[in-house]
Amino acid sequence: MNDEELDPTRTTTTTSQRVRFCETDLMGIVHHASYLVYFEVGRVEWLRQRGVTYADWASRGIHLPVVDAQIRYKTPSRFDDLLTIETTLSQLRAVSLQFTYRVRRDDTLIAEGATRLACVDGQHKLFRIDAAMREVLLSAPKL
Amino acid sequence: MNDEELDPTRTTTTTSQRVRFCETDLMGIVHHASYLVYFEVGRVEWLRQRGVTYADWASRGIHLPVVDAQIRYKTPSRFDDLLTIETTLSQLRAVSLQFTYRVRRDDTLIAEGATRLACVDGQHKLFRIDAAMREVLLSAPKL
Amino acid sequence: MNDEELDPTRTTTTTSQRVRFCETDLMGIVHHASYLVYFEVGRVEWLRQRGVTYADWASRGIHLPVVDAQIRYKTPSRFDDLLTIETTLSQLRAVSLQFTYRVRRDDTLIAEGATRLACVDGQHKLFRIDAAMREVLLSAPKL
Amino acid sequence: MNDEELDPTRTTTTTSQRVRFCETDLMGIVHHASYLVYFEVGRVEWLRQRGVTYADWASRGIHLPVVDAQIRYKTPSRFDDLLTIETTLSQLRAVSLQFTYRVRRDDTLIAEGATRLACVDGQHKLFRIDAAMREVLLSAPKL
Repeated sequence: MNDEELDPTRTTTTTSQRVRFCETDLMGIVHHASYLVYFEVGRVEWLRQRGVTYADWASRGIHLPVVDAQIRYKTPSRFDDLLTIETTLSQLRAVSLQFTYRVRRDDTLIAEGATRLACVDGQHKLFRIDAAMREVLLSAPKL
Repeated sequence: MNDEELDPTRTTTTTSQRVRFCETDLMGIVHHASYLVYFEVGRVEWLRQRGVTYADWASRGIHLPVVDAQIRYKTPSRFDDLLTIETTLSQLRAVSLQFTYRVRRDDTLIAEGATRLACVDGQHKLFRIDAAMREVLLSAPKL
Repeated sequence: MNDEELDPTRTTTTTSQRVRFCETDLMGIVHHASYLVYFEVGRVEWLRQRGVTYADWASRGIHLPVVDAQIRYKTPSRFDDLLTIETTLSQLRAVSLQFTYRVRRDDTLIAEGATRLACVDGQHKLFRIDAAMREVLLSAPKL
Repeated sequence: MNDEELDPTRTTTTTSQRVRFCETDLMGIVHHASYLVYFEVGRVEWLRQRGVTYADWASRGIHLPVVDAQIRYKTPSRFDDLLTIETTLSQLRAVSLQFTYRVRRDDTLIAEGATRLACVDGQHKLFRIDAAMREVLLSAPKL
């Protein structure tokens, strides 16, 4: 599998989240750890739009823990901001996949980042992403 | 089992927690949901001092979910405050128990509250607290 | 001000939230502290539908910290559940107000509770809810 | 200022944290966002051991927001694990500084990472780290 085969028009999904009061800190801005949560929300929606629910994959012994994360904070965001999260499948390898994220408030880039997920079974052993999973991950979003 | 049998000199355990930056909100004070977490930390330490670890009870199919919680917020606390959490077993009934909590910063009462925990098995069915569990819960703290 | 004057058909607002992965705990269910966050989300939407934004009231020195909270947990909820949060202004007094909450998954009651908020100024001094605020709080929801 | 001048025997501080129940997720392991919080706890203790309190620097208009973060997850950790957080000042530049972190459970590496902090004033403008701050940041830890 070669990363070049990924077609960004099919591999991006956009969702939105309003900043919660509890996600701010005493500096009056969104706490930096909250962005990993926004990325996760984006990833769950990305999977849902390809017909994947966690419950379904988990029942078949497929888990996708985060093994690596990077975040660059560009502009502070604040309570009640309506954030747009763009989630893109950027790499699909033998036993792992990578998503990249852009969090925006209108046209202002708030944060961007990436997470690598390993594909593991219930015993936390690496697991080869099979053809059926690959087909789902490369399918166009529904909705 | 009668609540009066509880001897407060044996049923109270004190632990401390320093307020984390991420636990504050834009009002500059500790977010009100954080106190349920402090109560939980106090409860885990309370159990540890009676020799109970979650892993041990869970492996025997014993779970103690919170079914009811009350909190009264008395004085704001702030980032880096060193809080003292007093946890007291206040009721021990057939299928549930209640802990009460006082969170202090030195002599200032910050918050107080109570949580009722049900005793359930792995299928979330109510479960009678047996004599062995009762003996542990009524034992004096080690340490 | 008498609580009886509150007209529930005007004082209830409903919003929805999907359970995030990070809001679950090792029991596989939503952690009990998350419900205070859902209540807060419901309260912010309640105020927004009456034209109140935190930024606006805060800039006029009006703050509404939680001084008391109760929660009763009825049924566990799980990752990815779509929860409905009904938020009702249940009391409007001289210097405080109370909201009650019902969290449902379809017709199943998940949790219910109440929070009392004090009206304070920037120095955390109690503050009489004035006629203009009262009019807003008793207005019918827009939207 | 050259990074080579940093003496790691002076720039590392170790602290410990016990994993809270609420920090786990339904996979039964610590949620990946929690590590940014552990890093933050490590950083606060690092500063405290050099005599820096947030309140003090904030009152002088000095803030250190995170502008970049990386985390590599090596081994899952679980509820009640006692984690050791090693925090090292790894770079001290004109307007930013970088800390690196290693989170261990005994000798097992759980996660490692780095965060870059910008030095900004109350208006979120970049701010040159002055000689007095530099002296504090390069001082040996008190205890």
